[in-house]
Amino acid sequence: MAIEAVNLAEKLTKFSEHWSPKKVTAFNGHDIMVVKVKGEFNWHSHDDTDDFFMVLEGRIRIETEDGDVTLGPGELYVVPKNVRHRPVAEEEAHLLLIEKAGTPNTGDEATAATITEI
Amino acid sequence: MAIEAVNLAEKLTKFSEHWSPKKVTAFNGHDIMVVKVKGEFNWHSHDDTDDFFMVLEGRIRIETEDGDVTLGPGELYVVPKNVRHRPVAEEEAHLLLIEKAGTPNTGDEATAATITEI
Repeated sequence: MAIEAVNLAEKLTKFSEHWSPKKVTAFNGHDIMVVKVKGEFNWHSHDDTDDFFMVLEGRIRIETEDGDVTLGPGELYVVPKNVRHRPVAEEEAHLLLIEKAGTPNTGDEATAATITEI
Repeated sequence: MAIEAVNLAEKLTKFSEHWSPKKVTAFNGHDIMVVKVKGEFNWHSHDDTDDFFMVLEGRIRIETEDGDVTLGPGELYVVPKNVRHRPVAEEEAHLLLIEKAGTPNTGDEATAATITEI
């Protein structure tokens, strides 16, 4: 039986919209996702999951109530659950994200993006 | 308060031994780790965690009971729990790993590497 690698660069060719995470595989009840971001997201927190951000391309700043962190390619940061944060990208950046499956990306079901698998 | 990015390349300068994962941060009860690998690991499985492998540098083959997969930089694969597998690297490769905290890397407490944080 063949099993397949997830090639992140290839997955990132499949969409262009910003702030709309796409699931690429699953891990222990979590979604492994890629996302393209540009501009400022909303301030939010998640009460039941840490939030894993790794930059694949570009640069982002994660503003948090505990301070800010800037990430470039090959850098990651985990925002602890309940910590309010806001990702900001001056230019388009591509990220690997991991969150508990079903987590609203905005912290609020009403405004959350629908996560589709690619 | 300052918060700090995890720079994976910088973490990888801190050790040289193979098959000895180093924790770089935590995420939802999991260890986020980097590891240098070369040669063949043992066949094993984990009965309580999926096994996340992402290649940062080099190339690995993950042989599994369901088939084999080869990963290069920017590629990842999640070995489902209970699936027997063996990572193999012809040349040294550098990986990002995620496993439930406390998981023996060999699948067996008796032979597992001790995970230290760097």
